[in-house]
Amino acid sequence: MASRYNAITDVDGILVGHHSRLGDGWATGTTVVLCPQGTVGAVDGRGGAPGTRETDLLEPENLVSRVDAICLSGGSAFGLAAADGVMRWLGEHSRGFPVGAQPHEVVPIVPAAVVFDLPRSDWGNRPDAEFGYAATEAATNGPVAQGTVGAGAGTRVGSLKGGVGTASVTVDGFTVGSLAVVNAKGEAVDFGTGRAFAADFEVASEFGAWPQRAGELPLHTGLDDLNTTIGVVAVDAALSKAECRRLAVSAQDGLARSVRPAHSMFDGDTIFALATGDRELSEVEGPFAAQARAAALDRLCEAAADTFARAMVHGVLTATGLPGLPAYRDVWH
Amino acid sequence: MASRYNAITDVDGILVGHHSRLGDGWATGTTVVLCPQGTVGAVDGRGGAPGTRETDLLEPENLVSRVDAICLSGGSAFGLAAADGVMRWLGEHSRGFPVGAQPHEVVPIVPAAVVFDLPRSDWGNRPDAEFGYAATEAATNGPVAQGTVGAGAGTRVGSLKGGVGTASVTVDGFTVGSLAVVNAKGEAVDFGTGRAFAADFEVASEFGAWPQRAGELPLHTGLDDLNTTIGVVAVDAALSKAECRRLAVSAQDGLARSVRPAHSMFDGDTIFALATGDRELSEVEGPFAAQARAAALDRLCEAAADTFARAMVHGVLTATGLPGLPAYRDVWH
Repeated sequence: MASRYNAITDVDGILVGHHSRLGDGWATGTTVVLCPQGTVGAVDGRGGAPGTRETDLLEPENLVSRVDAICLSGGSAFGLAAADGVMRWLGEHSRGFPVGAQPHEVVPIVPAAVVFDLPRSDWGNRPDAEFGYAATEAATNGPVAQGTVGAGAGTRVGSLKGGVGTASVTVDGFTVGSLAVVNAKGEAVDFGTGRAFAADFEVASEFGAWPQRAGELPLHTGLDDLNTTIGVVAVDAALSKAECRRLAVSAQDGLARSVRPAHSMFDGDTIFALATGDRELSEVEGPFAAQARAAALDRLCEAAADTFARAMVHGVLTATGLPGLPAYRDVWH
Repeated sequence: MASRYNAITDVDGILVGHHSRLGDGWATGTTVVLCPQGTVGAVDGRGGAPGTRETDLLEPENLVSRVDAICLSGGSAFGLAAADGVMRWLGEHSRGFPVGAQPHEVVPIVPAAVVFDLPRSDWGNRPDAEFGYAATEAATNGPVAQGTVGAGAGTRVGSLKGGVGTASVTVDGFTVGSLAVVNAKGEAVDFGTGRAFAADFEVASEFGAWPQRAGELPLHTGLDDLNTTIGVVAVDAALSKAECRRLAVSAQDGLARSVRPAHSMFDGDTIFALATGDRELSEVEGPFAAQARAAALDRLCEAAADTFARAMVHGVLTATGLPGLPAYRDVWH
């Protein structure tokens, strides 16, 4: 069952904000996922060309387990600067890891990843700290704008325009939601039929009818070999940092089912996981408590994979084209 | 044998620049290690509280193997912004990973790590992109300023002021150099004798005579539990990315020998390794070529451990005190 908005914001306390610039030599932006206090974070990277920040601290054996926000951005490594603005906003709101006696003396924990979308903008036009600040300021619960917006403003997926997509599901009373910034080297769609590779994971006819006819393949220039899909999966369960990482591991399976090839040397595919901690993962006690907990975690992981794949499809279907880069809806209008 | 400057800049083509602010509520800064084109980079992190950027791409299995600079900075996670300025400087000089047809269309590769020195400055005073730009602009070969400067401006080591230190050695005709930003939770000195724990690794009387008398231990406030030692080890050999990582692994041994405890949950100890590629690691051919190459690498690794320990000692001995935080030279003057 999909939740209310079919979005990552169906997870209580999770807010999403976009900031993008489109036109006048710009097609890039930043998407921020803001977490409620006490949210546990983790990450899994499986691409050969990642651009990241503050991922080492998320290793399960390390000190910090709470994160304040995840910053996803265009601009390749230049876009890592967007996280500076997210940190500034959070600091102004006294949110972060406490390091002093005063409430405002905090170091906000903002892991970040970027996608390679530089060819969509004039050289030098990239997200900076102001993009991160504006996206955080804009963050809300409720419906999430999808397609050519935020970090998905300048993305591509194979031969088509990519975008931001999101999806959610409820399982065992928990809500699992994913948000993907679709920017893969691989294709997401069978050009012979117009059907998304991850079409099988559809819930409640969310994708609509598939065209069942060939699309005219746009010419691939071959100049955009660097790509990278990034995203976030969130759940309202209370998880350890290591358990939380399992969600990110599984979400990568959703990515693998959505684009072909996936996880190439020219993708930096990085997925963050968030556990907001509303409710314990399992109530089972006694000798089988550990197995029951692991089985409960696996059900969330399956939901992580499925929602991430669905988010990917939404990112493709909702994207609008840019000059020279048609979207799915342009090819199968 | 120590090389000319007993500094990481003894490795041909390696430049070091500092930018710091001291006084008027400031004691923090940034140190940039600038690499010659084609330098292979790697990283090893062994502390529980790292603050890092662009470390994932350095994993041996990932695409990018060349780095343009390493950015070391104070300011905790806020100081990761310094790398934005290093990237800007490099971009202005058309240095980076090529992503377009024009020479200036590059993405500079600038892995970065930060130390926790926030208690040394008024709240809000931290390195930003301008610090990174200025440190890069200031980078030179030749002697390297040590002590309370650059990323070492606001550091501490146990009960004492820490600082930047550097050292080098030649082995098998290669030059190995280390630079350490000493900011450990552990102590670096035996307070009963004034002798550095890593005194044994001295080369050519570089540390001078040890006092052999007890020092008056400054009161440890206990408020500075977050620390982190960061640094760089460089060699002029041609190494693969995986081989290069062995240098960083070994340099962590030098850190372990220098401070007690080392690699705690409250340190984010991260060491980068650079191989500039002037000369092949081993000329041996035939059935024992692989073993000979591994043995040659191990000799460089031993030098990495030793020079990093020596750099740590120099960082302690050259530091000058700050109000409320005496340096070694204040206690054993």
